[in-house]
Amino acid sequence: MLDKLFRPKSIAVVGASANPLSIGHMVMKNLLDYGFKGKVYPVNPKTPEILGHQAYKTVGEIPDDVDLVNISIKNAYVPMAIEDCGKKGVKFAIIHSAGFKEIGEEGIALEKQVLEIAGKYGMRIYGPNSQGIENSDPDIKAYANFTFTPLSEGNISIVAQSGGVGEVLQLQLSKKGVGFRMYASYGNEADVGMNEILEYYGQDEGSRVIMVHIETLSDAIGFMKIAGEITRHKPILGLKSGKTKEGLKAVSSHTGKLMEKDVTTDVIFAKSGIIRFDSQDEMIQTAVALCVQPEPRGPNVAMITNTGGPGILAVDEIVSAGLNMAKLEQSTMDNLREKLFPEATVLNPVDVLATAVPEHYGFAIDALMNDPNVDSILISFVTPLFVDVDGVIEVLAEKGRTAVKPIVCVIMTLDEDGELIKRIMASGVPVYEYPETGARVLVNMTRYGATKHAPAPEYPSLAVNKDKAGEIIAKCDKGYISQVDAYSILDAYGIPVAKTTRIKTSDDLKSVTDNLQFPVVMKVDAKEVVHKSDEGGLVLDIADETELMAVFKNMESKFTRHDPSFIVQEQLGEAVETIMGVNNTEGIGPIIMFGLGGIFVEVMKDVQFRLSPLSKQDAHSMIREIKGFPILDGTRGMAGADLDSLEDILLRISRLAQDFPQIEEMDLNPVFSYGPDKGSKVVDVRIKLGSGVEVAAM
Amino acid sequence: MLDKLFRPKSIAVVGASANPLSIGHMVMKNLLDYGFKGKVYPVNPKTPEILGHQAYKTVGEIPDDVDLVNISIKNAYVPMAIEDCGKKGVKFAIIHSAGFKEIGEEGIALEKQVLEIAGKYGMRIYGPNSQGIENSDPDIKAYANFTFTPLSEGNISIVAQSGGVGEVLQLQLSKKGVGFRMYASYGNEADVGMNEILEYYGQDEGSRVIMVHIETLSDAIGFMKIAGEITRHKPILGLKSGKTKEGLKAVSSHTGKLMEKDVTTDVIFAKSGIIRFDSQDEMIQTAVALCVQPEPRGPNVAMITNTGGPGILAVDEIVSAGLNMAKLEQSTMDNLREKLFPEATVLNPVDVLATAVPEHYGFAIDALMNDPNVDSILISFVTPLFVDVDGVIEVLAEKGRTAVKPIVCVIMTLDEDGELIKRIMASGVPVYEYPETGARVLVNMTRYGATKHAPAPEYPSLAVNKDKAGEIIAKCDKGYISQVDAYSILDAYGIPVAKTTRIKTSDDLKSVTDNLQFPVVMKVDAKEVVHKSDEGGLVLDIADETELMAVFKNMESKFTRHDPSFIVQEQLGEAVETIMGVNNTEGIGPIIMFGLGGIFVEVMKDVQFRLSPLSKQDAHSMIREIKGFPILDGTRGMAGADLDSLEDILLRISRLAQDFPQIEEMDLNPVFSYGPDKGSKVVDVRIKLGSGVEVAAM
Repeated sequence: MLDKLFRPKSIAVVGASANPLSIGHMVMKNLLDYGFKGKVYPVNPKTPEILGHQAYKTVGEIPDDVDLVNISIKNAYVPMAIEDCGKKGVKFAIIHSAGFKEIGEEGIALEKQVLEIAGKYGMRIYGPNSQGIENSDPDIKAYANFTFTPLSEGNISIVAQSGGVGEVLQLQLSKKGVGFRMYASYGNEADVGMNEILEYYGQDEGSRVIMVHIETLSDAIGFMKIAGEITRHKPILGLKSGKTKEGLKAVSSHTGKLMEKDVTTDVIFAKSGIIRFDSQDEMIQTAVALCVQPEPRGPNVAMITNTGGPGILAVDEIVSAGLNMAKLEQSTMDNLREKLFPEATVLNPVDVLATAVPEHYGFAIDALMNDPNVDSILISFVTPLFVDVDGVIEVLAEKGRTAVKPIVCVIMTLDEDGELIKRIMASGVPVYEYPETGARVLVNMTRYGATKHAPAPEYPSLAVNKDKAGEIIAKCDKGYISQVDAYSILDAYGIPVAKTTRIKTSDDLKSVTDNLQFPVVMKVDAKEVVHKSDEGGLVLDIADETELMAVFKNMESKFTRHDPSFIVQEQLGEAVETIMGVNNTEGIGPIIMFGLGGIFVEVMKDVQFRLSPLSKQDAHSMIREIKGFPILDGTRGMAGADLDSLEDILLRISRLAQDFPQIEEMDLNPVFSYGPDKGSKVVDVRIKLGSGVEVAAM
Repeated sequence: MLDKLFRPKSIAVVGASANPLSIGHMVMKNLLDYGFKGKVYPVNPKTPEILGHQAYKTVGEIPDDVDLVNISIKNAYVPMAIEDCGKKGVKFAIIHSAGFKEIGEEGIALEKQVLEIAGKYGMRIYGPNSQGIENSDPDIKAYANFTFTPLSEGNISIVAQSGGVGEVLQLQLSKKGVGFRMYASYGNEADVGMNEILEYYGQDEGSRVIMVHIETLSDAIGFMKIAGEITRHKPILGLKSGKTKEGLKAVSSHTGKLMEKDVTTDVIFAKSGIIRFDSQDEMIQTAVALCVQPEPRGPNVAMITNTGGPGILAVDEIVSAGLNMAKLEQSTMDNLREKLFPEATVLNPVDVLATAVPEHYGFAIDALMNDPNVDSILISFVTPLFVDVDGVIEVLAEKGRTAVKPIVCVIMTLDEDGELIKRIMASGVPVYEYPETGARVLVNMTRYGATKHAPAPEYPSLAVNKDKAGEIIAKCDKGYISQVDAYSILDAYGIPVAKTTRIKTSDDLKSVTDNLQFPVVMKVDAKEVVHKSDEGGLVLDIADETELMAVFKNMESKFTRHDPSFIVQEQLGEAVETIMGVNNTEGIGPIIMFGLGGIFVEVMKDVQFRLSPLSKQDAHSMIREIKGFPILDGTRGMAGADLDSLEDILLRISRLAQDFPQIEEMDLNPVFSYGPDKGSKVVDVRIKLGSGVEVAAM
């Protein structure tokens, strides 16, 4: 529990100073300026008093208990200070000082030393190289941080790996007047870090919305568990930097850590129900709405506008994001027709006209609130000089207070002192400057609504022969395993594979004709031959026994130095080619891929990823979200695939990857799929074994 | 020339009133409040004086010349007022009054009457149902509009079809302190409209940037000519609403069906060099930069940052938009290494560190300005409490004044009174709140730079037999023409087609074997049979004469009621399938399509469009911008296509469509293309003739 960190009763500031440009001074000043409800003790051996408070030479000298210390002295002196704090019984130490892990070997050793000392006393370390924490709870008012955004009460909590990004987020929330609840930027994460803070925010009733900024996750599996729990009842908005390769380089030089590829962020966020953003602006705009409004229960948006042009821009945004303009009930339209000006438009968007009176807005909002086809309402209001703007604002504010469905407002007005906007915001309705922004925010709110109200993931039980697969794997060396073994493993997991016979010598060829029908395919099966077809290790269309023998002799002599085996397979008829794969990624476990095969995967990169274990919904959606889905669907005159069997195979390879973390990579390429109910079969498989990495359980 | 509209010496306000909620009152008030430099005459038969100015009963009674009138009386009285103005010799009448074309038949008649009266006197009409115009030129200060945004001097001019959108644009420019030059929202466009206003802005030296908002273009061809001229020397930023609306009439061709989205605006904007925006916010942010900064000469961005996190977000934005992070010269890095703090990062992004002093920013800006690999500079500055923020701002402002390459600044600061930002903006450097916004703006500025500095389009001369094609077309009826005719037309334009022989009776079959080698293809050729293969009118793989005769007999009996001809074609070998097409679109002329054939066009809709006439550059780029280009390129182990011959065919079909506007639709599907230098051939063609629509000349 981080109560003593975020809700301390007393704070000591080690390195507090009279120098206004020092971090210690700023922390003192922030604690005092923003009215910390507990006690503050400056610690400085050279000064008797700082900012009107008696200074102590050491933490040990402070006469009362100390929950939290902020340390900003030179790195070399930090271990001594920690020892002092430990003896005193301090619970948490925020270390602002830099010069630890981020500077290399020497700093790593120093950081280790600090952790060891703290460990002795059961004290927790926050940082080093960190900003600190803030808590705007009126009972606490702790600004244990050296930055400059004023503490202003709100219900959005922020945890940011980059202090710079965190500062921008809290700054903008503050400028927009919505404030924030708790703030944390934790630097080197030697001890207290992302997951624990996130969990704490999740449990804090005063935090209605959580914003996270991530560069790297030290424990992605733990993160997903915690975030996944939280997003069932409150939204987490996520920003991850380093999307592009160049962005990655900047991350490494900044933190000295390697970044994950961006796909990993997508799958992690998706698994956790986190709404992902690429832009701080859009994330902030969305938080401003979610901190006062409920999430929509569905994708149908209704709009009220008093001038056409801006409304159309919002419609464009809504429709291109895949939401719908709600189809109003006839009774709603009749009702509107009766109450609004005769020239008003009572279809959606409802155009009340520039000259509409305040009551018209009220009628329209009520009518849409009562229409069961409407999930959310966007109001776009340009303030003409000839109407009662004050009256309209009054109505919007009043309706905002009683709204049962989310309302988002766009007001295009001069409003030089921001008075109009403040009045509406105070009623709990978020206000934006542009219709596109309002629409975008509704889109993001709806994304969260869909996440929160999604049915629980189903993990169907599958009949698999784990023991058999385990036996085969136990016999294999690390690296690529033989194809015969790979097919056997798939078979043990109930994954349909093309009929295959193993051949070692020409004597074995007899068994082929017993088991398979011509035409058949012959492939070399040797560990060193990875790209079979490039090396002449794959022959198709073998028509009869004579040909089979000829092919065998030829291959045998070609690959003799590899001590090869060979496999002969039934040659499958034409089908839709798909590709599936597994990449067991350090720190997060197996990522499962699905795509259309051949040229689609080569050129169009039309693939989807999900994190294992796949739920039924994951398997279902990843197939349907590839762009080439119509090819599988069998629409537009195409034969289509057996979607059920593809889903089943995906679930089984997820289970296999889950059960055997030593499967580092697996390519099922191609997987042929026939029409509906006609099944799918794996035609080629490669499995690479490694040492095994941790795998997430669900 | 619109001088008397935008630079009038005297304005009469017909419908001026003491009622503060009337349009006439507001126009009067705006003209007076914003200090119109000419004379203002209220016209109102019932009042002796309005806002301290003597009122006249009619325009005729005004003792001086009147350049412009603003009319806001009831629609029915407008014709009388126009007659009065005409007699007086008024040059322009802005009609605010609604109740004209937009209300249907009655209004259409009234609008026609107004135009006729104005025509008699050589008076120009602006509107009806229009906002009006504004001109902030200090010599003029004309606010002949009833809206509420204050007139503030600037160099951005706005022309907006939607008054609501126009209002938002000028409002935001005003709020951002950059103001605007001229403003126009022209309502029904009975006379003065988009093109004339755009041309006027283009010639106005005080307009450095132009913003346009379009819903529909009444003369798209004229628009492209005018805009195309302007964008060679100043940027036009374009916003088009109604992206997602299905505005296209029913079309039967493949090409037409693929034009589902907002293709027409894309091709019009592309042909005109207009930078397209989907969001008002982004358009405004970009205008704020282009109105003070030059456009970048290339795609290489350098960044200076004092905190890692926010910088990474900007890098992500830059790189995902296809720009580059500039690779700095070694000498630049050496120079920076010497001048900055030892811990600073001298790679791009240059991280001067949070504690950097003002001189460091100066050094870094100078070094990047002097690096030939840098085309533009983005500065990302979080204002820490412990540095000399004022000093840094001073340096940024100073460097801004002498910049030879575009600089864009992001300042993340509390700056409650906006003083810091104003100081930098005053030096001509645009300032943004978020790194992503700054990056996005640089991306858009670079888009304009690429347009402005692109080499002039080349229209290579092509040897075509226009007379022959004209003769064939002259003989054809409207609707789908026979395939034999279609092939002959392509042939006349030098477009390679599969070898084809026409067959009417079985006697003609003899000629086939003289001209073609087996295997061959037979197709029915009858006007009513559009989907040949669905109806059994296409047989492939005909191996010899016997088979040919059998196929012929079968088809002849099947299609006998259509009085069919047949064609026999050489059966071409395997090749890359592409598709080309033409859709002659009312108001803008032929749109040319190119894409990969088969499943790619059916499912992935991987096609590109350009407006005819195609330049060499158009043909070159449209082939390279399809996502499946690697398939044509022959990379990744694929055979590839003959790109030169594909370009040549595209240029020729553009020329054909240009020469014969009566070609309404044309599908070349498939066009087979063989490897480099191996040519391409049209395998199937459908041409539909119509009455002919106007076609743009270049």
